Order: sequence, then structure tokens, then C-alpha cells
Amino acid sequence: MKTLLLLALAIGALNCFAQDPAVYNDDPMQQRALGQPESEYFLREPTGLENPDNTGVFPPNWWTNMEEPALEIMVHEKDIAAYTSVAVQQPGVSVEYVSREANPNYLFIGLRISPGTKPCSLKLELASRGRAPKTITYELLPHPRKDWVDRDQLGPQDMIYLVMPDRFANGDPSNDVVAGTHDTLLNRQKFFFRHGGDLQGIINKLDYLHKLGVTALWLNPVLENNQAYASYHGYAVTDHYSIDPRLGDNEKYKELVAKAHEKGIKVIMDVIFNHVGDQHYLMRDLPGTDWIHQWPEYTKTTYRAPTLLDPNASEYDRKLMTDGWFDKHMPDLNQQNKHVANYLIQNSIWWTLWSNQDAYRIDTYAYADGDFAAEWNRRLLQEIPHLGIYGETWMNGIGIQAWFAGGRKLHEAFDTNLPGVTDFQLYHAIHEALGRDPGWAEGVNRLYYTLAQDYLYEDPSRNVIFLDNHDVARVFTSLGEDVTKMKSAFALLLTMRGIPMLYYGAEVGLTGAGGSFGEGGRVDFPGGWPGDKTDLFTSDGRNATQAALHEFVSSLATYRRASKALSTGKLTQFVPRDGVYVYFRHQGDETVMVVFNGNNEAVSLDDLSPYQEMVGGYKTGLDLTRGKESVSLQKIGLAGKEARVLLLQ
Amino acid sequence: MKTLLLLALAIGALNCFAQDPAVYNDDPMQQRALGQPESEYFLREPTGLENPDNTGVFPPNWWTNMEEPALEIMVHEKDIAAYTSVAVQQPGVSVEYVSREANPNYLFIGLRISPGTKPCSLKLELASRGRAPKTITYELLPHPRKDWVDRDQLGPQDMIYLVMPDRFANGDPSNDVVAGTHDTLLNRQKFFFRHGGDLQGIINKLDYLHKLGVTALWLNPVLENNQAYASYHGYAVTDHYSIDPRLGDNEKYKELVAKAHEKGIKVIMDVIFNHVGDQHYLMRDLPGTDWIHQWPEYTKTTYRAPTLLDPNASEYDRKLMTDGWFDKHMPDLNQQNKHVANYLIQNSIWWTLWSNQDAYRIDTYAYADGDFAAEWNRRLLQEIPHLGIYGETWMNGIGIQAWFAGGRKLHEAFDTNLPGVTDFQLYHAIHEALGRDPGWAEGVNRLYYTLAQDYLYEDPSRNVIFLDNHDVARVFTSLGEDVTKMKSAFALLLTMRGIPMLYYGAEVGLTGAGGSFGEGGRVDFPGGWPGDKTDLFTSDGRNATQAALHEFVSSLATYRRASKALSTGKLTQFVPRDGVYVYFRHQGDETVMVVFNGNNEAVSLDDLSPYQEMVGGYKTGLDLTRGKESVSLQKIGLAGKEARVLLLQ
Repeated sequence: MKTLLLLALAIGALNCFAQDPAVYNDDPMQQRALGQPESEYFLREPTGLENPDNTGVFPPNWWTNMEEPALEIMVHEKDIAAYTSVAVQQPGVSVEYVSREANPNYLFIGLRISPGTKPCSLKLELASRGRAPKTITYELLPHPRKDWVDRDQLGPQDMIYLVMPDRFANGDPSNDVVAGTHDTLLNRQKFFFRHGGDLQGIINKLDYLHKLGVTALWLNPVLENNQAYASYHGYAVTDHYSIDPRLGDNEKYKELVAKAHEKGIKVIMDVIFNHVGDQHYLMRDLPGTDWIHQWPEYTKTTYRAPTLLDPNASEYDRKLMTDGWFDKHMPDLNQQNKHVANYLIQNSIWWTLWSNQDAYRIDTYAYADGDFAAEWNRRLLQEIPHLGIYGETWMNGIGIQAWFAGGRKLHEAFDTNLPGVTDFQLYHAIHEALGRDPGWAEGVNRLYYTLAQDYLYEDPSRNVIFLDNHDVARVFTSLGEDVTKMKSAFALLLTMRGIPMLYYGAEVGLTGAGGSFGEGGRVDFPGGWPGDKTDLFTSDGRNATQAALHEFVSSLATYRRASKALSTGKLTQFVPRDGVYVYFRHQGDETVMVVFNGNNEAVSLDDLSPYQEMVGGYKTGLDLTRGKESVSLQKIGLAGKEARVLLLQ
Repeated sequence: MKTLLLLALAIGALNCFAQDPAVYNDDPMQQRALGQPESEYFLREPTGLENPDNTGVFPPNWWTNMEEPALEIMVHEKDIAAYTSVAVQQPGVSVEYVSREANPNYLFIGLRISPGTKPCSLKLELASRGRAPKTITYELLPHPRKDWVDRDQLGPQDMIYLVMPDRFANGDPSNDVVAGTHDTLLNRQKFFFRHGGDLQGIINKLDYLHKLGVTALWLNPVLENNQAYASYHGYAVTDHYSIDPRLGDNEKYKELVAKAHEKGIKVIMDVIFNHVGDQHYLMRDLPGTDWIHQWPEYTKTTYRAPTLLDPNASEYDRKLMTDGWFDKHMPDLNQQNKHVANYLIQNSIWWTLWSNQDAYRIDTYAYADGDFAAEWNRRLLQEIPHLGIYGETWMNGIGIQAWFAGGRKLHEAFDTNLPGVTDFQLYHAIHEALGRDPGWAEGVNRLYYTLAQDYLYEDPSRNVIFLDNHDVARVFTSLGEDVTKMKSAFALLLTMRGIPMLYYGAEVGLTGAGGSFGEGGRVDFPGGWPGDKTDLFTSDGRNATQAALHEFVSSLATYRRASKALSTGKLTQFVPRDGVYVYFRHQGDETVMVVFNGNNEAVSLDDLSPYQEMVGGYKTGLDLTRGKESVSLQKIGLAGKEARVLLLQ
């Protein structure tokens, strides 16, 4: 009853706001309430708030027997820096240093927790002349290492599903608007306003995802974004240790991880080192001037990643790329400040050990300090060897993207330590293959040329590959809602090397585009909200096209989940002939043949002689793209831009 | 008198042929005389000619005190293989092996010439049961090492000028048609027929080249091409030890090298390992079946270099790339045959020591066996440390081109040992910058992105950069004969990192395009032939546009020849702002600023603040592109697509 009442209130509120001319205009891309001011840029001073909020101790707890015995605790409290000494009486634990920034509301305590230290409640005794001593109780929990046996690492055996939590399913309307948060406008007609989706909604759909073939769930950021507006996307974090209350709470996140694991689904947290929301408590009560990059006037990054690797780059451009701000309401963190670096690294370790999550996707990877990013990767993998990590590398050029991938192939004295990158180059290539006629190195041949340069990666199978994401137009829209092309896109995605990633709703042909960062594609999944007229989570709710696409994905993804060839198998590609591109995935006695017609006209492949080293004695194939019919290999017909996936038999 | 008479005969012949309907049609791209059959493909057998020609000993001589003491002499003579033993009586020289192929007309003698062996005439005593003994006299000359002191290696301090010898200047009309050669049709109206240019013509123009700023001369191949037709281009060699008689002879080549050196001009020989002409004596009297790649039917290469580096490539595609034929009348050599490899390597060493030339340009670099090519590079640089080498890498993709460049950055267990590549990626980028509006990574930004990936090369300053060459449309034609764009192209060419290469006649705006390999650009240099109506070698002969372009190139190239900044100086580039691309070349106190407007509309650069780290306290620049006027840096005006080069003062 309570839920229903709140639901009614929420829908009422939505309708009310939607019609309120004082708040809304007619533009679905409206960014703020009418009259609401945009965040101002200003130089920030570490003067110290009189009444700081978000006081406490960070990280809120730690574990014994970590690989790295050092831990830096940050205490945030009015005038805490006045304490000059910290003592602890616990075998194995010592205070290594006590450190301050300019803001008196912060104290940094460097501890060493030696191997073999027993789980306990530490008593940190803070003392100072002329002040009452203060005791901080700090929990050292037993390390969860014993639960990690045979832990599977995110890899090409997985299929990732990207969910924007505000837009997928509203499992708990009671948290749609949360008292005390700044952004209380709920409006499903507006792309920049909150819609009400949440973690409970995702939990409710885990079975749907499992049946689709999903084995890993990447959520756009779920940490608190208590921003004044546009808080829904999650990339403006305001508290690194709390789940956003509109999405749930920390325990709900832990529950999501546990329930996903029951379905064989890993959970990937989206993390941002480059920036925070301007309402972050660290910004409102800035510890030190150099915690962020401050410019006399608001100064944007150039978004030009090449400056970082270009031997010809100017210092000016390098600085602008990393120290310029990504957006006016997101202050740019300075990870060269060691306290900032510790805060970020320990926070990421904390979430993983605390929640039992599986992997990280690192946002705006190229924009943070490179040495810091490499150290984050090293530290995280040192502590959690099974952790999956991939970084967003939204850039142009294989040689540019590959530079960010880990390994020493492309770097002489430096390793990024980054296991995976988001493969925007393959994304560009797949779209070109589907959208353009074959040329010497264009159209389908660009796809061939892109894979040919895989030697630039230490391990290209760690690349996360995709057809779209939350920042770009939805693939079905890009492809002009052409069902054949859409199926081909899925077929390529699910059969190429790398870790395929599906953007929520692509499997039922959701459409949308527009906005600087693909905001127009961040649509609600129909059926995710109580009262939705159509429910695409169920087969009954889907029209013929939606059903066909869903069946196509779930069928191929389900096959892939059990297939060595399509996951970890070797890829062997052939030079496209007359615009027809043929490649194989193979391992042991399982060989899958993929034939893609890069032409707009139908063709028939009737000469298999170039492919003999792969086809061998096989005469027929089980067509995984056409309802698993058994077909002769002698003549393989393909519509324009069609891909067929044949399990050789 | 004799010359004039021959000239008259030649012109007469030309006119006669040009009008002969039995020989010619109206198509300037006519490939053969009417009725002349195309070369047939057939399987070749090493049966042994009854009357072999081109008999002799190869290499025709050698030198003492080589770095590599081993030498393999190939003797070509009727039934020479019947000799079973070879002896030599010379201190320091020993016979290591005697080897045969299937064809009895060849014998291979492996010698070892120990360090310290004195120059001499070796007497090689060939013996066999039931045969008269035979003595081969073989010269070991003193090593020219002492003449190599302080020898300058081809590098970014140079400007290369590419000449197609048949099309540049006809210095000796007596050799336009040579009795005994197969291709005797002279026709300057036809791109595929001979025109009469020769080495003497080039010698005559060395002063012109020197004044233009040229410091290195790359000649399309000059070795004998006694082919039935289309012999003019030189890439179908029929005798590796003779200059083509239509161009001159071996002594004339040596004279060219010596006279070029007097003008400070290096000479670069164009060499082909991948293939030979089908009329090569080694083809007419094939030593062994596996000297060439033989296919049941004529089989072309795919021209797909990526197969060589692609970790996903099929064996089928790899084999087709290297073993397929480049052209039907050019059999594809198998360099994995050790005799073939020795023949090619020793031939290249021989020419360099014999002629005193400076460098090699390697044709179709990616098409020959990779291990062989790496070994050729190693052996040549071992013997001639000052040798310049660059390989043709006509391909698409920086990661593909860079793979062929030497150094171990991109290869784990393998080094191509290739110092330089022909930078087709920069060629594509310069044309895109001049031909297209700026996009995020398109137009002028592609130029920026291309240089940004320089980290993929061990040393990008060894790349040979160019605006066009003999295989593509002439740059002035590609640029729509737009003089501003053409000047900008020259300005970019002469100020970017790498070794700039100018295609003959670009400096006077020669035009031409068309044909599969840019044959339509292989025009005669006006004034190179006796009787030419216009003479663009002299200032009097040039119209205003030709004079302006020539002055632009010669002025900038002359400055560059003495400039450390523009040759070996560091390049620092800035992210293009609003389509305006700024980069600097700088060394010591010499700083050159290049400003290129990638837009089609005029712009004015009036904010120098991004460039302060380079501009420093400079207030003015000497404009090397506008008549060396001194200009203020405060406001730099640029026409659409204009580049300005400013020496900061």
C-alpha cells in the first residue's frame, strides 16, 4: 500500500511538473528548471567550512592482511587538524605519519598494518596541547580472500550489458524523489531530469538479463550525485562512499552484487578519477588548493588524447588536456596530490572488498594523470588479482587508443597497466562496414584493417567492443532502423575478439540520438516503470521487430556463453573479396564461420577455396543467425549488409 | 653533327610511329603496339638453354676486406654445372662450397676471402672428370673504405628529387633507340612508350637541381629493362649488372654519381627484390624451379600488406600477398632460395661500392620475403654504414606502415632493420588537410593526428615525406591547380619532420594523372628535349605561375638546406584551433613557426598565447613564404588553405 501510494504521488508529481510552465519548457533536452542558474566557475579556497557536513573517517573501515600494508585515513571534522599526534595500541599496527592540508577540517593519518595483524577495532588516540583527546574507533575486518577461490575474471567469455540505472527499471518508486537532495525534479519526458530507475529495478530484471545471455552488468555510476541538476547520469559524484539515495543504498548495492552472482552475472562499477561533482563535500570544504586544477577563468580540456603520447606535443596542450575541466560543474581533480591519489585508490579497493563486485570501468581514462592511472591499476590488481578493469578510450586512431592499453609493447619506460580499453576504433569500423560501400580501405575493409592492427595490443581480447553506449546515438537509430543491418551488427559484436558490450535495450531495438553526449539515447526501457503501457521485458510486450531482434541476440549470446570458439578462440580473418568479409573463430574442434556481405546488394559466396585452411572437410553449417537451420557451405547467400554465423558441422 | 643527325632521325622516327596506324591507336594510355601480344603467363622449367646469353660471372668483381668474408659467385655458361671441383691458390682465399641448381648452365662457388687478403686477380680453377679444366679470372679490388671518411648519410638534412629517367631530359638522342633491344618504339605522345630521356640529360641538369635546393636524386630504376613493351619505367629489370642502354651505360652512371657529388647531391638507386622482368636472363634460362613463385595459373598478389603483421591473418592471405605476382610480365622472385638472396644482396653491395652511390630506395618493400628484406638491410648497412635506405610502404594505416620501419618497438622478436619508410600516411594527411574542411579528426586535424602517432616509429625523421610520386596523380592536378594550396603543400613538405621528396617538375607545376599507377603524371619535363618549344629549366621559359612556384620551392629549399631547425630540429605541434594548425621547428636559437589555415575561408591568427612556450619574446617573423618580408606576429593573416612559414626574429 505504501509503495502504491508513493507511486501515485510520484506519477502525480511527474505530471504536475511536466505541465508546470514555471519549471519546464517544451524542449526534451532542457537541462535545468527554468530560472535555475547554471553552476558558476570560481576559484576555490581551502578556508574550512564552519559547519562541515559529510564528516567522518574515510575509508570507513579497512581489512587485515592486505598486500599493501600502508593505509591513509582521512578524517573530516571541524578543526580536526588541530590534533598534533595520533597513537594506536594494537600489535602489528603503527602510525607512520600525521599530515595536514591547508583546510583545518581535515587530518590524514598514515597507518601501517603489518601482515598477520588480527581483525579488530583500532582505537586511534588523537591528542593535542590544550584540547580534549579524541578516540576514533576504526574497524579492521578479516580479509575476504578465502571467498575468492577460482574467481572468474571479466574477459572475452563474458557479455557485458550497460545500464543507466535511472533509465532501466524503477523497482522502488519510494526513492524517486528523496528529501534533502538538491535535484528533486522527476520528469520522464526530459532527458536531463531524473526518471526514477534504481538498483531494485535492476535486481528485478536479473532473470531477464540472464536469459538474454548477459554475464556482466556495467552500471553507469551509482555513487551519490547530489548535484543541483542533471544528477541522473551519475558522473558528478558528490560522495565516494555512498550509493545515490535515488538508486538505493550501500546495502542495496551489495544485494545487487550478491543476486547478480547467483545468476552468473558479474557487476562492474563505473568510476571517475578525473573529476567530481561541484557539490562534492571535498569541493564545498576543499582540503587544499591543489586538490583540483584551478584556472583563473573556466578552462575546458581540449578532449585531445593524442597530446599524451605525441612526441611532438606542446606542454601547453598536454596541460590543457589533463588539467582542463571536462565540464563546468565537475571540478578537475589533481591526482598528483598524494592525498587525492590515496583517497581515490583506497575508495576503489574499499568498494570491491566491501561489495564483492567484480570489475571497474574507468571513465574519461585519458583525462586523469597518467602516472596516477597506472598506479591505480597496479594497486587494484595487486590487491584484487581477479578484478576486471577497462578504461574509456573515446578517441580516434588505433595507434592512439592502443597506447593506453597495458603492456610494454608501445612504451619504452612506462606501462599503463590497463588491462582493457573500450574499443572505439572497432565501433567506428563496424559502423563504417554497415554504413558505407566497400572501398580499398573503407567500408567493410576498414573493419578488416582495424583487426589487422591488433598486433599493437598486448591482448586485444581484453578490449571491450560495442555498437553504441550512453554517450552516442543508439545503434538502431544510426543504422536507420534497418533490421538486417541491426542483426549484422549483433552478429559482428558477438563473434569478434574482445568482450562484447550491449547497451540496455539495444536487444529490443530501442532508438534515440542527439545531445552532446548521446543524451537522446538515454531512454527508459519500456516496461521498467509501473504503469508502462508496453513491457519489452516480456515476449508478449514486443512487436515483431522487437521480438526478432531479441530472439537474435538471446539465441547468439546464449550460444556464445557456452562456446570456447566465440569467446577465447582464435580469430582468423581473410582479406575481403568483392566486399565479402569472412572470418572464423575456432578452438579445438569447434569452428564458427562468419560471413558478412559489405555490399548493399545481395551476393552469393560460392567459392570456398580461399578458406580451406579453416573450412577443411566441413560441408555444412548450423546457421546461428537463421534459426539454427543446417545449410550447405557450397553456396552461401547473403542479403545486402547481411552477416551469417555458421557453426561448421 | 653526328648528334644532330641522330636527333633528326629520332624525331623523324617519333613522328613516323606516331602516325603509323599499324602501330598506334589514339589512346595516350595505349600499352603496346597494335597487334603486339601481351606477355603470357606459363610455368617455367629450369631445363637449360642451348645457347644462353648474358653468360658470365656475377658479381663481376669483388673487394678485399669486406665485413662479411663470404662471397657466392654465380657462373652462367652452357653446362658449367658439369664442373665438379673448384680450386684457388691465393693466400687468404678459400673455396667453401660448390653448388648447383637444376639448370646445368649455372654453377655457384662459395668463397671465403679472409680479412687482410691483398687485392689480386684470383684464378679459379674449375675441374671435372672428362672435361678440359677451365680458369676463371676474378678481380678482388682494394676496398674503397678510405674514401668514406665523414660521408654524409641521407637524412632529414636532405631534399630528395625523384626523376623518371626516361621523362626528364634527353641528353643523348643517339641512345633513344638501341639496336638489339626489344622495345624500339619511341613516342612522346604515349605514356607507355619510351620518350628518350637518359642519364646524360640528368647530368646536364645537375646545376638546375642544385640551384633548386636538391641534395639527393632518386632515380626510378636505371638497370636494364629489355622488355618487349612498357620498358620505360624500369621496374622490370632484365640484367642486374647493367645500366639500361637507352639511359646510358655503367660508366655513365658512375659519371652521374661523381658529378652529382660535386654539386653536393647524393644519388639514390631504386632497387626491386620482389620481381624481375620476364625477359631477365634468369627467367629465360631459369636456374631452378623455386627461383620464382610459380602458380598453376597466373595469380596476383592481393596488394594487402596488413596480412604480414596481422595476428589474425590467414596463411592463405599471407602467401598470396608475398608469393602472388605484382604483374603478369614480372615474375615474383623467391628470396627464400639462398642463391636468389645472395644474388640480390651482393648485387646491391656491388653497385654501391662500384659506383660510389649513396642510398637505396626499395621498391614494393612489403611484397618480398620479410626475413630476406631484413637481412638485406642488415648486410648492406654492415658493409656500407653510411648507406641511406628507405622502403616503399604504399599502404593505409599508421600502425601498418610503422610496422615496417626498423627498430624493435613494434616487434618482439624481429627487426625489419629498415631505416626509413615512404610516408604515405603523411601524404594522405597532407592531401586531406588541403582538400577537406576541418572535422574532429578530419581535414587539417588528420595531419595533426598523423604526427601525433609518431611515437610508433623508432625515428620518424627518417621517413621520406612527399606530395606525390611516379605512382599517383601529380599534386598540382590533385589540388585542382590551386596555386595557394600548392604553395601550402610545398611549405608543409619542407617544414615537417622527415626527408622531403619532390617529384620532378612539381616545382614548375607540371600536371598529370590517370592510369593504374599514375602513368598520366609521368610527363616529360618541358625543355628536357632538343627542340622543346618551352624550357621550364630556365626562368625565361616559365609563365607567371610556373615562376612563382619555382621561386617558392627554391627559396624555401635553399633556406632549409642551411637550416638546422627545419632539418634536424625538433618539431612541436599544437592542437589545431578553429582549423588553424600551428607547429614549430626549432634548434638552438633558430625557431621557425608554421601556421596553416585548414579552412577554406581566410582567417587571422591574433591570439599567440597558446604558443608562448615557442614564441617566447619574439615579436616578428621573417616570412619565408612571402618574399622574406618581416611581419609582426601580433596578427597573422592567412588566406583559405594558406600556410605561412615564419623565421622568428
